Amino acid sequence: MRLLSHAKNGRSRGAVLSAGVAVDLAAAVELAGLPAPADGLLSVRDYLAAGHPNDLVAEAAARLAATGNGIPEHELRLLPPVPDPDKILCIGLNYRDHAAEAGLDLPTEPMVFAKFRNCLIGPSDEIVLPDEVERVDYEAELAVVIGRRGKGIPVADAHRYIAGITVFNDVSARDLQLATSQWTLGKSVDTFGPCGPWLVTLDEIADVADLRMRTRVNGTVVQDSSTAEMVFGVAELVAYLSQAMTLEPGDLIATGTPAGVGFKRNPPVLLRAGDVVEVEIDEVGLLSNPVAAPTPAGRRPVAATAPGER
Amino acid sequence: MRLLSHAKNGRSRGAVLSAGVAVDLAAAVELAGLPAPADGLLSVRDYLAAGHPNDLVAEAAARLAATGNGIPEHELRLLPPVPDPDKILCIGLNYRDHAAEAGLDLPTEPMVFAKFRNCLIGPSDEIVLPDEVERVDYEAELAVVIGRRGKGIPVADAHRYIAGITVFNDVSARDLQLATSQWTLGKSVDTFGPCGPWLVTLDEIADVADLRMRTRVNGTVVQDSSTAEMVFGVAELVAYLSQAMTLEPGDLIATGTPAGVGFKRNPPVLLRAGDVVEVEIDEVGLLSNPVAAPTPAGRRPVAATAPGER
Repeated sequence: MRLLSHAKNGRSRGAVLSAGVAVDLAAAVELAGLPAPADGLLSVRDYLAAGHPNDLVAEAAARLAATGNGIPEHELRLLPPVPDPDKILCIGLNYRDHAAEAGLDLPTEPMVFAKFRNCLIGPSDEIVLPDEVERVDYEAELAVVIGRRGKGIPVADAHRYIAGITVFNDVSARDLQLATSQWTLGKSVDTFGPCGPWLVTLDEIADVADLRMRTRVNGTVVQDSSTAEMVFGVAELVAYLSQAMTLEPGDLIATGTPAGVGFKRNPPVLLRAGDVVEVEIDEVGLLSNPVAAPTPAGRRPVAATAPGER
Repeated sequence: MRLLSHAKNGRSRGAVLSAGVAVDLAAAVELAGLPAPADGLLSVRDYLAAGHPNDLVAEAAARLAATGNGIPEHELRLLPPVPDPDKILCIGLNYRDHAAEAGLDLPTEPMVFAKFRNCLIGPSDEIVLPDEVERVDYEAELAVVIGRRGKGIPVADAHRYIAGITVFNDVSARDLQLATSQWTLGKSVDTFGPCGPWLVTLDEIADVADLRMRTRVNGTVVQDSSTAEMVFGVAELVAYLSQAMTLEPGDLIATGTPAGVGFKRNPPVLLRAGDVVEVEIDEVGLLSNPVAAPTPAGRRPVAATAPGER
């Protein structure tokens, strides 16, 4: 199943992608005979938290799609699949080929840093370069979406806590990121987290540890690797994080980037206004985000306002 | 004005502290003639986001308190004043006396790391030591609560974006924190963020840059310093962070800890089950949190479930 979010009347609305059309998630849940929200509005996060059986909802969505109750996906402005996660946990230096290009030893434990909701934008939204930052870089990443609350999850059970995966671009202001030892601020600039286009449930993926991933800047391939290069796999990361933290439905775990990041290239490839940066993961989908000039200080960039936010 | 949160019927409810009693925030807003929520339930975060004039609400609360419409504060189980912030931003090495004890140079830019909602507990809740961590330490901190959305805020305007201040204990698992270069995981363990007992609006504080702060472990003073030791002041931090990130009502900024942290003491003072750790800031309030033994893995500690969370 593929789950997406889009903005409707200023709020975030979940949908199921079925035969190319987006079927309203609340309508599919109701048709499946499952408890639906009274106001007819269901976000992806609330859907995950409810723990509904995906197969029944997918089947209901297919029936709705077949009877014309859907909107062609390309007519919607897609939001990140979960616009309002409780946590965005990111893993640093988690690809063997990236550690090699950085000239660093492989980590013996996952390196965990944070982004926040303010950075999340949809799969076609603008990445806005603020005045204050320079050296803005892309990072193609596979992101895991947590499906149910868990703490102390064993590696062998981790798949039961994963709703699915999506594509993430861990856009990074290298100057801010590396100004002190702690990376979080340079990682959490408004609009620096393109995500989507949808959440793909695990049953649709042949092997999460063998997915080709690519980044293109203005059509030129700059990252071309595979999740097979990961140091800590998806299940290990979920288990590791859950030893310390309760994971919640909708939490995002961005699992690290492979070789080819811009500031390690010779010459460096840094994002400029007018660029288009694409991140694609096979079997999952494509992000294609234009890079835009700074907006006047104090003005919140439109793309940073996820309508699902409170 | 002092704003607090408590749990009622499993949800987080805001209240105004008036003459020692907690007056329901929704009732005070309604009596003040301001738009009140239809369901009669108002969280502190939603109150801040609404931008109501505090003076009218405080006056209405005083009238309600005078007519017996309040609950003695000590009869309530207090939650963190904002149990559901969008972001918890923490500043490292921001006290001159702490940098000196750590033998480190003063930072030239604020060091920003993150905690998440899962760590937040109320002013009397238990800090639970998980099996997986050792070397658990306290850090007394003044936390700023953001009052309105802002981006690119000038230092001179920062006070207009600050709702008030509260007391924070940035409990830290030193082993996890220092296992890699990134501190976030060791900082975001469930229950590792006692906060409260209330938010005190800025107009009640004579000088935010001159507040005595102390930590006691089992009654022994282990930190005794002042916010006068801060490297980057409250207004500078708000302005700095807002250059990169849109700040939202309810966001917490934990502004760093002074000298005396446990793992730098000789001999070290680390938290053990059965300890009681108190953090007090003059003119603001007191946190008094018992430290509890590990809970079985997989079980979510009760104290980590903030009823205001989705």
